[in-house]
Amino acid sequence: MVDATSRERAAGVLTASSRSQVPPFMVMDVMAAAARIEAGGGHVIHMEVGQPSAPAPRTALNAARAALEHGRIDYTSALGIPSLRQRIARHYHESYGCTVSPERIVVTTGSSGGFILAFLSMFEPGDRIAVTVPGYPPYRHILTALGCEPVLIETSSENRHALSGEALLSVHRKTPLKGVLVGSPANPTGTMMSREALTHLMTAAESEGIRFISDEIYHGLDYAFPAVTAAELSPRALVINSFSKYFCMTGWRVGWMVVPEQLVRPIERLQQNLSISVPMLSQIAAEAAFAGREEMEIVKRGYEENRQILIAGLPQAGLCEFLPADGAFYLYADVSKFTTDSHDFARKMLEEAHVAVTPGVDFDPVRGRSFLRFSYARSAAEMHDAVARIRRWLT
Amino acid sequence: MVDATSRERAAGVLTASSRSQVPPFMVMDVMAAAARIEAGGGHVIHMEVGQPSAPAPRTALNAARAALEHGRIDYTSALGIPSLRQRIARHYHESYGCTVSPERIVVTTGSSGGFILAFLSMFEPGDRIAVTVPGYPPYRHILTALGCEPVLIETSSENRHALSGEALLSVHRKTPLKGVLVGSPANPTGTMMSREALTHLMTAAESEGIRFISDEIYHGLDYAFPAVTAAELSPRALVINSFSKYFCMTGWRVGWMVVPEQLVRPIERLQQNLSISVPMLSQIAAEAAFAGREEMEIVKRGYEENRQILIAGLPQAGLCEFLPADGAFYLYADVSKFTTDSHDFARKMLEEAHVAVTPGVDFDPVRGRSFLRFSYARSAAEMHDAVARIRRWLT
Repeated sequence: MVDATSRERAAGVLTASSRSQVPPFMVMDVMAAAARIEAGGGHVIHMEVGQPSAPAPRTALNAARAALEHGRIDYTSALGIPSLRQRIARHYHESYGCTVSPERIVVTTGSSGGFILAFLSMFEPGDRIAVTVPGYPPYRHILTALGCEPVLIETSSENRHALSGEALLSVHRKTPLKGVLVGSPANPTGTMMSREALTHLMTAAESEGIRFISDEIYHGLDYAFPAVTAAELSPRALVINSFSKYFCMTGWRVGWMVVPEQLVRPIERLQQNLSISVPMLSQIAAEAAFAGREEMEIVKRGYEENRQILIAGLPQAGLCEFLPADGAFYLYADVSKFTTDSHDFARKMLEEAHVAVTPGVDFDPVRGRSFLRFSYARSAAEMHDAVARIRRWLT
Repeated sequence: MVDATSRERAAGVLTASSRSQVPPFMVMDVMAAAARIEAGGGHVIHMEVGQPSAPAPRTALNAARAALEHGRIDYTSALGIPSLRQRIARHYHESYGCTVSPERIVVTTGSSGGFILAFLSMFEPGDRIAVTVPGYPPYRHILTALGCEPVLIETSSENRHALSGEALLSVHRKTPLKGVLVGSPANPTGTMMSREALTHLMTAAESEGIRFISDEIYHGLDYAFPAVTAAELSPRALVINSFSKYFCMTGWRVGWMVVPEQLVRPIERLQQNLSISVPMLSQIAAEAAFAGREEMEIVKRGYEENRQILIAGLPQAGLCEFLPADGAFYLYADVSKFTTDSHDFARKMLEEAHVAVTPGVDFDPVRGRSFLRFSYARSAAEMHDAVARIRRWLT
């Protein structure tokens, strides 16, 4: 045993770095509280977690089973199994009618792995990157951990909660931005950007050399109008996507990026060093998932039904204002007439009505105090039950 | 389509960040060249890749199969499935006779995921971290990508190629170090640190507040004497391990860390934001792998046999000098009497003798020009064949 006592003076040995002081992802705490209620016999309706309740497509599960029977689970090429990269490229042709070379596809360990590779390859420490609020908290926390400065730009109802080119350039003119990251459909709002809005924003960004990252993890889950991929609009955009949401494969941790040609080799080297490769079984299942789209379309129709139940039901329960629920499986509701402490409000709703939702402060430290995010990725029966519980609880 | 021509002036839009300019992992290029020979009908003996040829234990494969049949593959807790963390803690009791609380176990996406979390949570940008050369290249490349400065300390035969406390402190006195990272058994050398050497080094590090990281990914594969875990020697050491090597689970991407108590929560927050969670199926298989140790001990005995074949055979083939092959499945051979360009030498050996090995320059930019790394993780027959091929080729 190394003698400890004489070493205690070694200042700072046990403290964490300042860059690791990122906030927790609060939805995790909500999940833990819900688990405690369930352990005590309570029945919680889970609307807090951004996770489909359906399993991966049968085609994906069968491919994983076959790989376990007949194959070895080895390291793969750092950029991903070639046939998967080709299949993803074909997906752009089939789903968007646009041509993307398989060479530009990078398979990642979930979209999380994609963000790390994108930020490291595109930005230097100290670079300022615009992200919208409300927004997915890990955007800003990963940027911070990697030495970049997230610049929060508030969205508003005037522009359907999409970031406009004018808003971007107005921030950029004060202190230059190096990049901008947007998601459509967005988390936590569920709002989407029209083709016109996306083109306008990308044109504004490129005119000033601001690099564009498009988080398209909720593509496929579009109800208001078809989602547009940034890959179609510019070969210089970096697109991040995943099998987690549309294909219901959260726990598999597999996603992909479409990257500008010039970044392929730098990202390959980073992935070789930072990850070696992406989980092989997940890559095999992912490739087969594309053959399971019919099954996933049925799941999607379930979300559409849930969305209608909430849009019709929540106002009857007293929650009358929410952002346009265009896509994904989120509804972002204004609860300002009940509270300015959404964290406490969500805690009470969970404890008293056994409905778990995520407080808006997770996504927007300021205005989020008056918002809640509802995830509607579970059954229609649970949606009806949730509306009824909230109505009883609020009245 | 966003208009491109008018944007080309936007300087730097397409160039990669300077921190992404890490070198490639050369073994990947060797693998690609070997694949080309095989595509042309050649039969290559693979001694280049650090990957077991045996599959995961049957217990692990069965658990993965059962999970696919009966369960959902979801996000898990960021720190890992609780029962897996408990099982890993028990492993420290069973294998080393030391007590480690499950609270201090963090499940990671391979040891690669562990390095990222360890470096981000322990070090600030600009911090200097000592690593040994020859050494695993991603150590220094991940540090560089995360803004730290790897400080290379050469090992020598005087100290059986282990880093000594004196060597560490002598570097530290010139410009202070914030951390030190060592592996035992080591890659690429196969050398191991005795209990005395490890204790001595850790005592020296802690006396100066230099944080200690122990890469124990090759634990379990020790032939010369039993490997000692740093977790037994100090609660302030951070231990990195993985299921990839002893348990033959490379492509599953699952590993673990033992972390100082004070780092558990910062690392949990980082993992929540950077990864969400580790692949669930891999975690389930990993927990079951511990029940497959008997099967893995047979695999290990195969490596021991291979090691003896190379130790006896390579000198007959003309390669008389190598470092103490104490553990892992590597032998690091001095080829200075044949070449000072190990990259070209390895290329020719692959093309002419169809034996794939890794040039030492991957692990040591200077002295590695006169070294080759042989991985002996395949069959005894292939080891005999490799020795014969090299003998014919060199004479």
